Amino acid sequence: MNYDQLFQQIKKKKSFLCIGLDTDIEKIPAYILKNNIDMPLSDFNKAIIDATVKHTVAYKLNTAFYESQGWNGWMQLDMTVKYIKSHYPDILVIVDAKRSDIGNTCNQYAKAFFELMDADAVTVAPYMGKDSVSPFLKYKDKWTIILALTSNDSSSDLQTLHIEENGLLVFDHILSLATNEWGAESDNSMFVVGATKAESLVLIREIVSDHFLLIPGVGTQGGSLEDVAKYGITRKCGLIINNSRAIIYASNNNDFAEAAAKKARETQKEMEEILQKYGII
Amino acid sequence: MNYDQLFQQIKKKKSFLCIGLDTDIEKIPAYILKNNIDMPLSDFNKAIIDATVKHTVAYKLNTAFYESQGWNGWMQLDMTVKYIKSHYPDILVIVDAKRSDIGNTCNQYAKAFFELMDADAVTVAPYMGKDSVSPFLKYKDKWTIILALTSNDSSSDLQTLHIEENGLLVFDHILSLATNEWGAESDNSMFVVGATKAESLVLIREIVSDHFLLIPGVGTQGGSLEDVAKYGITRKCGLIINNSRAIIYASNNNDFAEAAAKKARETQKEMEEILQKYGII
Repeated sequence: MNYDQLFQQIKKKKSFLCIGLDTDIEKIPAYILKNNIDMPLSDFNKAIIDATVKHTVAYKLNTAFYESQGWNGWMQLDMTVKYIKSHYPDILVIVDAKRSDIGNTCNQYAKAFFELMDADAVTVAPYMGKDSVSPFLKYKDKWTIILALTSNDSSSDLQTLHIEENGLLVFDHILSLATNEWGAESDNSMFVVGATKAESLVLIREIVSDHFLLIPGVGTQGGSLEDVAKYGITRKCGLIINNSRAIIYASNNNDFAEAAAKKARETQKEMEEILQKYGII
Repeated sequence: MNYDQLFQQIKKKKSFLCIGLDTDIEKIPAYILKNNIDMPLSDFNKAIIDATVKHTVAYKLNTAFYESQGWNGWMQLDMTVKYIKSHYPDILVIVDAKRSDIGNTCNQYAKAFFELMDADAVTVAPYMGKDSVSPFLKYKDKWTIILALTSNDSSSDLQTLHIEENGLLVFDHILSLATNEWGAESDNSMFVVGATKAESLVLIREIVSDHFLLIPGVGTQGGSLEDVAKYGITRKCGLIINNSRAIIYASNNNDFAEAAAKKARETQKEMEEILQKYGII
């Protein structure tokens, strides 16, 4: 899915929502586990996806929640990605893996997520620099999503300090390097910026005026959708807002999928108002 | 395995070698694939492990090479870890995963590697700060290995720049934070320092005088064992030197395990001389 196709989906669905499938075996309804002890995560995911797909343009699967179930969890991760790709080809499928390593190793990660799994996008961590990101960027028809300013409290341990050599904040330095030297273009890359740091979006938009930003932290982590739009929205939206727990665990009873759909629809409605307010639709 | 047990193993084996099982399906001998098309990576690993275990104190499994084979690769990763743990309980098993995420997510990664897989150690990336590391450090009988100064060229993109607020190099800042504020003690944590940056070990030892350092980059990447020892060795060795490709791909014929053992023994002999030279054995 390229930049324009993603924007078309946003206009069509009047939504820039991404639903995070952080599917925790301890939080899914008991009857799912009872019905399918072997594949409960992917069963849960399918029900959530079928119920919410009208309201969302992307799903994000966090590898940690699948790896904590061993190889069987990895299989369910893979099955979920392929389920979305085959049933809903217009959806952007993000694997939130936050990988990083030397080039030789990142080639293997890129193969895992972009070829075997056929995900559209993968998140990567920039601590190791260009070598660790460029193996992903080589895939021109895929998206590499680079961590910039994350939503957690301790992002201040490094990301919001300044680099002495150029005076930039660390996350700004990463944005500059990525776009100027690593080949992170607006049609092959996005950046992660936490909704809990909405005002920083002003600074971020000075460097990446067109790139899509993947924004976690609205919902359970406390970020505001209004603020994110105020500081970060572009003419082509440029925002993908992730919401995980507040949607997928809206209920832990048999009505979990309906409850998730209701919550997703509420969020989509808020997004529709924002898209109208800023003249995008 | 605790700090003293690791040091005892180093003295007993006269080796501080870690063999990296970066097992690439395209590089293993053809007959392995022919014999066991389902589990070639773990078959290869078992042969390498049985042949080299006398000369090494640790094995490091790089998750990328297993993930690029899908869920079946993950199963072989898990099988290899469990094979080492059950057959050679005195060996340190490191999963080189370089994970990082918010706390809620890192709890799942820690569960995956420390509980389900029962690895002794896992590598983590520090870009997201304390939240992303402390879920691993909570496991007091395990090792959290934090990236500090990596062996790749583009580590200079971020790690060797200075933080304006405190004048520290980024990797030094991470070492300081980890040891002073995150709870990274010498008995529950190590740091990754590339052998290609041996002179930086002087600065690193000013901050972490006792911690074990995991040193990749000797061998194929060009780092020198002599230099690493000169600048980084401690009274209790304090070094685990990883060598992957130069050992496990010493031959790609039927004699691959013997060739790996020969190469591992050569490296062990060099290490024995170093341990003697510095009065450790």
